[in-house]
Amino acid sequence: MNRQNLSPEALELQPILKHPEQGLVVADRVLKDLYPEFFSCLNFPLLLLDAGEDAKTIASVQILYDFFLANKLRRSEIVHVFGGGTICDTAAFAASSYKRGCRLHLYPSTLLAMVDAAIGGKTGVNYSGFKNQIGTFYPAERIVIHPDFLKTLARDEIRQGIAEMLKLAILFPEIPIPDSCEDLPHAEDILRHALYKMSICQIDPYDGSERMLLNFGHSFGHALETKSEYQIRHGDAVVMGMIMACDLSLQMGFISRERHAELRNILSGYEFPASVLAYVKNLDMDELLVIMEQDKKSGSAMRLILPVGKEIKLVELSE
Amino acid sequence: MNRQNLSPEALELQPILKHPEQGLVVADRVLKDLYPEFFSCLNFPLLLLDAGEDAKTIASVQILYDFFLANKLRRSEIVHVFGGGTICDTAAFAASSYKRGCRLHLYPSTLLAMVDAAIGGKTGVNYSGFKNQIGTFYPAERIVIHPDFLKTLARDEIRQGIAEMLKLAILFPEIPIPDSCEDLPHAEDILRHALYKMSICQIDPYDGSERMLLNFGHSFGHALETKSEYQIRHGDAVVMGMIMACDLSLQMGFISRERHAELRNILSGYEFPASVLAYVKNLDMDELLVIMEQDKKSGSAMRLILPVGKEIKLVELSE
Repeated sequence: MNRQNLSPEALELQPILKHPEQGLVVADRVLKDLYPEFFSCLNFPLLLLDAGEDAKTIASVQILYDFFLANKLRRSEIVHVFGGGTICDTAAFAASSYKRGCRLHLYPSTLLAMVDAAIGGKTGVNYSGFKNQIGTFYPAERIVIHPDFLKTLARDEIRQGIAEMLKLAILFPEIPIPDSCEDLPHAEDILRHALYKMSICQIDPYDGSERMLLNFGHSFGHALETKSEYQIRHGDAVVMGMIMACDLSLQMGFISRERHAELRNILSGYEFPASVLAYVKNLDMDELLVIMEQDKKSGSAMRLILPVGKEIKLVELSE
Repeated sequence: MNRQNLSPEALELQPILKHPEQGLVVADRVLKDLYPEFFSCLNFPLLLLDAGEDAKTIASVQILYDFFLANKLRRSEIVHVFGGGTICDTAAFAASSYKRGCRLHLYPSTLLAMVDAAIGGKTGVNYSGFKNQIGTFYPAERIVIHPDFLKTLARDEIRQGIAEMLKLAILFPEIPIPDSCEDLPHAEDILRHALYKMSICQIDPYDGSERMLLNFGHSFGHALETKSEYQIRHGDAVVMGMIMACDLSLQMGFISRERHAELRNILSGYEFPASVLAYVKNLDMDELLVIMEQDKKSGSAMRLILPVGKEIKLVELSE
């Protein structure tokens, strides 16, 4: 059996990156240029991929299959993946469907991937204009958080990760609100967020109950990403999605004006780029709703995670 | 959570085929022509596919994804699949990877699919010249065995199913040897075989121990299928593979001449087409071994299911 693992033990904070076990390596092309010594020390077959939503395709998955086959990868062997969310998602889907699943170790290289994308076993690629339409549930056997990778991360990228940390903090009072939208969080805070997400995924791996809450801001967010053809980045889209969810809740009478102001106040600490604000200002909400209809988390009614009273919960809106 | 099911309760013998629950229908083109009334009564979106190993491709999987998306299939909805092993394997892989897995009901239409291919959750397509290289473990929520479908099955097709029933009978003494290689087995015998396979898969879903025995004849068999570019059919290849395994065991000194004669005697009841016998006569065994090397069941050593003494078990041959 393939050693999939959704327990907190799968997570490891590794201040100095160790030489991994024998296997194949898949890495973000840019990461390899930033850490040439580490990657040249690895004496394993290496495939370099481009990051980004545009590269999260079936075609990239086939490039991975070809790489696995060319190197005669066996089910019992490990694929080590170094990259951000899009590379982790794509390579994990390929690993999950190669020979019905081989071993998988993830080394998320962005803050967003460390606290969110690499945690919880969701793999996937975009298809036919929709985000993550094709994928599997396939938790990695091991996830290595190496904070040094963040030193070379652009501020724009850090903000995408802060967005998911902010979401977790709004959902769960025991998680502190991030101090800043641009500064790197401490390694311990990153690990705490990752562990917290992992514990929720362990309770509810298939998005049946608790895990669904993690989609707060994501229905509007995914639609924004799709509609803007990924010009709006995931974290920015999720925070904008949470704002839209708060506004909808107020409009539907689910929350008081005070609660709405309280939530909007927390979210106001997030600094959107001007381009995102301009895009949303000119947005046709009806077009966004059409995309949300097709979103994978939808059941027969429109299901949204919305603030209701003092809570945030799943609400079914009849069509 | 998607209702995957590896328990015997997932199996249903349905003498008169009932109208299924709301969903999408994927069917073998030929089956629809043979049972036009049943399929025209189904008021669901219908996708017709060609059967055969040649059609078990990533391209077919994308045709399925497009059909699912065009009909706005949701994760909570059912894909009903009517067809033989190749269509069940392909459509089940598509269902398992669409929105990280939707609901799946299988209606195997061939004897081989009823007793083997549709049972146990292995999905897959061929890739880059190798059989089932891409796939997932994704047991159907429900498998409906409708024996009427067998009435229109060619003798050649019946034999492919008998081959897997013969394999099960050699592995497990409580399963009777099929009477004939050409006559249709009774519905109860079909169900008994299917239930027996299901019980083994339930104990060992991921091929770690008991289930591996079901690969008896399959390492040689898959290589024969691949080498012959699927001119040799799966059942014929598996029986020929069992013969090769018996011969190898005798050669390696794993079994006595008496045990070898006993096994060959049971297998001699199987009537190969002349073309298969001619193909095997001219075969270069070394080329077969190269293909077996790449076979997904291989670990670091060559692992084969072979007769050893009175048993049949997993043997690791060092390289």
